[in-house]
Amino acid sequence: MALMCDVQYGQGSSGFDLSKVGVSGVRKPVVLARPGINSPDSSVVVCSFDIFVDLPARQRGSHLSRNVEALRAVAEESVSRPYSNLEDLATEIAKILLEKHEYAQNVYVDVTAEYFRPSVTPSGRSTTESCILLAGAVGHRGQGIMKKIGVRVTGMTACPCAQQTVGEMLNIENPGFPLMSHNQRNVCTIILQHDDGVHIEADDLIDIAEKSVSTPTFELLKREDEGSVVINAHTNTRFVEDVVRNGLTLVVKNYPHLAGNTFVKVCSDSEESIHKHNAYAERTATMDDLREEVAKNIIAE
Amino acid sequence: MALMCDVQYGQGSSGFDLSKVGVSGVRKPVVLARPGINSPDSSVVVCSFDIFVDLPARQRGSHLSRNVEALRAVAEESVSRPYSNLEDLATEIAKILLEKHEYAQNVYVDVTAEYFRPSVTPSGRSTTESCILLAGAVGHRGQGIMKKIGVRVTGMTACPCAQQTVGEMLNIENPGFPLMSHNQRNVCTIILQHDDGVHIEADDLIDIAEKSVSTPTFELLKREDEGSVVINAHTNTRFVEDVVRNGLTLVVKNYPHLAGNTFVKVCSDSEESIHKHNAYAERTATMDDLREEVAKNIIAE
Amino acid sequence: MALMCDVQYGQGSSGFDLSKVGVSGVRKPVVLARPGINSPDSSVVVCSFDIFVDLPARQRGSHLSRNVEALRAVAEESVSRPYSNLEDLATEIAKILLEKHEYAQNVYVDVTAEYFRPSVTPSGRSTTESCILLAGAVGHRGQGIMKKIGVRVTGMTACPCAQQTVGEMLNIENPGFPLMSHNQRNVCTIILQHDDGVHIEADDLIDIAEKSVSTPTFELLKREDEGSVVINAHTNTRFVEDVVRNGLTLVVKNYPHLAGNTFVKVCSDSEESIHKHNAYAERTATMDDLREEVAKNIIAE
Amino acid sequence: MALMCDVQYGQGSSGFDLSKVGVSGVRKPVVLARPGINSPDSSVVVCSFDIFVDLPARQRGSHLSRNVEALRAVAEESVSRPYSNLEDLATEIAKILLEKHEYAQNVYVDVTAEYFRPSVTPSGRSTTESCILLAGAVGHRGQGIMKKIGVRVTGMTACPCAQQTVGEMLNIENPGFPLMSHNQRNVCTIILQHDDGVHIEADDLIDIAEKSVSTPTFELLKREDEGSVVINAHTNTRFVEDVVRNGLTLVVKNYPHLAGNTFVKVCSDSEESIHKHNAYAERTATMDDLREEVAKNIIAE
Repeated sequence: MALMCDVQYGQGSSGFDLSKVGVSGVRKPVVLARPGINSPDSSVVVCSFDIFVDLPARQRGSHLSRNVEALRAVAEESVSRPYSNLEDLATEIAKILLEKHEYAQNVYVDVTAEYFRPSVTPSGRSTTESCILLAGAVGHRGQGIMKKIGVRVTGMTACPCAQQTVGEMLNIENPGFPLMSHNQRNVCTIILQHDDGVHIEADDLIDIAEKSVSTPTFELLKREDEGSVVINAHTNTRFVEDVVRNGLTLVVKNYPHLAGNTFVKVCSDSEESIHKHNAYAERTATMDDLREEVAKNIIAE
Repeated sequence: MALMCDVQYGQGSSGFDLSKVGVSGVRKPVVLARPGINSPDSSVVVCSFDIFVDLPARQRGSHLSRNVEALRAVAEESVSRPYSNLEDLATEIAKILLEKHEYAQNVYVDVTAEYFRPSVTPSGRSTTESCILLAGAVGHRGQGIMKKIGVRVTGMTACPCAQQTVGEMLNIENPGFPLMSHNQRNVCTIILQHDDGVHIEADDLIDIAEKSVSTPTFELLKREDEGSVVINAHTNTRFVEDVVRNGLTLVVKNYPHLAGNTFVKVCSDSEESIHKHNAYAERTATMDDLREEVAKNIIAE
Repeated sequence: MALMCDVQYGQGSSGFDLSKVGVSGVRKPVVLARPGINSPDSSVVVCSFDIFVDLPARQRGSHLSRNVEALRAVAEESVSRPYSNLEDLATEIAKILLEKHEYAQNVYVDVTAEYFRPSVTPSGRSTTESCILLAGAVGHRGQGIMKKIGVRVTGMTACPCAQQTVGEMLNIENPGFPLMSHNQRNVCTIILQHDDGVHIEADDLIDIAEKSVSTPTFELLKREDEGSVVINAHTNTRFVEDVVRNGLTLVVKNYPHLAGNTFVKVCSDSEESIHKHNAYAERTATMDDLREEVAKNIIAE
Repeated sequence: MALMCDVQYGQGSSGFDLSKVGVSGVRKPVVLARPGINSPDSSVVVCSFDIFVDLPARQRGSHLSRNVEALRAVAEESVSRPYSNLEDLATEIAKILLEKHEYAQNVYVDVTAEYFRPSVTPSGRSTTESCILLAGAVGHRGQGIMKKIGVRVTGMTACPCAQQTVGEMLNIENPGFPLMSHNQRNVCTIILQHDDGVHIEADDLIDIAEKSVSTPTFELLKREDEGSVVINAHTNTRFVEDVVRNGLTLVVKNYPHLAGNTFVKVCSDSEESIHKHNAYAERTATMDDLREEVAKNIIAE
């Protein structure tokens, strides 16, 4: 039976262009060419995909099933030919979508995935820590595709201001060790979007995020490790503002080869222990902007 | 005791400007000058606030407690002198923040609140329906403040394509009544941001959202009303694309007096009954863009 | 038109009894006879209701719209005749349901609501703090109705073990002030379910929860208050186990008049700053059990 | 350095027994001995673990790090010697915990994991569908360990009552095909807890859940498949009550060998398209209870 229904191709009653049409929250495991816990050559990553294209005024509906078909094709291909990373996989989906949706000018693919990374506690115990990968691809027909690579890492911040206040209130001068402060979970997000051919490694961004907070955190801490984490946090007290600026500093320093139009976003969300609400800071900028600010600072000093 | 600690005024080690620093998820009830269920003159709305300013490179920390103080002042003032609406209240907070944060150039206030609105079922039964208000204010020092007013409304969409397919598969021609299709919760969001003096009424935006979906939904439906909602939905089948375009059409038509630089966002998120993922469409544009597209369509017709 | 459809009364194909059938997540504001921010006599509380009855094997469907009708009737009645508290309101809904669902033997009404309570910071500054009320009613036909009253309060805990470890690691003996530790948001829940006529005041349970953690937390803390909260937390270090036991001790002490069959649940959920996961403790018991354990302890001492 | 701190072994001030103490939300990938997408012999499943033991009155704190150690040991062992299923893995953790926590009498291990299962659309297209596995182990010292195995499956229900009402309102008799109704996502959960040696296969429980709703749903549906899903749903209209009873019927029928004390829970949560709230039904019972009800029905017929 040949179903005639193609309501999607009919003209919409209103004729407005749409910025984004597609599917969101599609869950799908993919295979990456990285060591995994059940294979030295490949690892499985469970992803959530948001996949959109634009839609011109003349067409009523976007063919949403094509988005899922593109995702399935790429995910299945990953089984026999694992992708190196999620942003390459997202880029491949974006390319297919521009072919499948002949009417679309723009394509947006976003991938979120949980990632388990080997880590080491202060005393050298090995652990595995969970974080979130935020990858993607944004394409404009005829202008190439920008890759997005990001991480969301939960660490800990201890507050520098409360620490100083406590010292003043208790009249403690130069105790020779860090004083108490409030400390809490801090979620640090770093995202880069660029159209260079260069590869940015998610592990490096995780390192940057973990260096930007007061201390990384760990799933397993025996007594001495727990003490070290607390001491480290209070030795490296950080506002949300500090976390973001530390992240920006390391991004500028570690990626001198990235093009000036690279988009950078760093944010820090602190689940305050002394409040029921969060403290938050973010910076969005191009790499050019950030480099210029670094240059200004060097001159100022 | 005069506490000396003012770590916030110290210079940051890195010297980057920050786009946004502040507090998020602050819960606070406010009083609006609208009929409420316990008063003919005032209603209480429980809000969640995100309040940010920018921070220049030369300063280490933003004074986050000032954000909460500004919020508290305005919320308390609302008790004796209720605000007409949340965007005016957000604007007042924004103004105070620009005074309190003398170093800030930009201020961002976002408010989310649940709102219960009287509604009427198809058979005329009165109900009260819950929706979300999305208000806010964005200010740039010396350039005034833009107000944001939006709504998030849950309704229902029935799919036009599946309905046609079903007819073809079952060889039903002109049955004289709408055929079955899949239908689901559809969350329609409409946001306007503008710096006109004019007031946009949230109730009107809710009306637009409810007209844009296949049918509004209701907390209480006795038999006949339930039947009517189902029949209405299948008589007015809608893709997510249709929902957004219907919303845009009504926004353009109902707000001829709004400035051309008014920012408009309409989106539709369909919690598909036939899939585990969602279908989604959105348009972001200026009012000028939308008006131009309407003009083009009229000529084309 | 008289609609004949009453599929619900048809016999189910399988004939199993069902434990609970009803509606969940119904949002509805109600009026309580307590001072509110827009009235000295009444306050508005936005609630989420779960309302279930059981269903005998012989009947196919429960009439779910009756649950919403009962809720609406009680919520509307609260406007002209405010209820003293949510558990009385839930009890009234439960009574109506046993009338409306003539086939039901059991009824379960659960209410969740956000509640804003005046509080005072260590230095005496007045604030308003958000917490969650957990009320309800459980009824069995012919056996009366048990009321449920509970609170969920976010406070702060500082860890006693890490504090001691830090002292040992840094060789600090008798510093004369509390040492640093990790601290975090702790969500303490206390629920009582009883069929006594006596009233249990939610404010008292909030007090118990706030005394059970290391320190309550506040929306607004100027410098000195922030320091005091940190010092208090580190002076009153608490494990999740301590939080639960403190809560139990105060419940037993403060409610000597409550019947022995009163059901008590106290739990503590610690959003650990040093881990990405939570620490958790709970006790569920009857008041008789708890009193017996207290008696044993006194003898043991 | 030998850290002396063992605050946990100190006596609590209050001396109450605690029902459950432990960690929640610990994320961890494990390897199962099932075909995976990157290996014919093993698959990786990302799990969230809640792990608790009870704590006697005489002891202040439970050693929470032992819970994470037990989890890590078992997860790591799974790499070289994959477990057949999550409930066996949970059982192993429970056994270790009873050894490690010599003071504990009870142990509770809960595992939640996303599972991707090959499925087939009505027209025979192969897809992969996401669902949630709910496994666990509950142990009492000296009494063995009960295994918990469950699934949470998202499908679709179409309402039988609205369908009949629509027919009456439109005066349609015997149209020869199903009429329209409202339909929506339905989340069906089936959990069995038993101490038999027998294995219950999660795939079988998923089959039961998918047969209990009006129709399973699919990530990818081309036109004809979409039509078939809609037609199937409206041919098999189901209340939430029907979903639960269908599930119970199949559980009783498919597991004649399970002991009478097996605990059974089936629930159905319908994200109603015509309402903003959900409809919900559940049954909790022992297998003996359910079998007795089946016997009664057979006699009644």
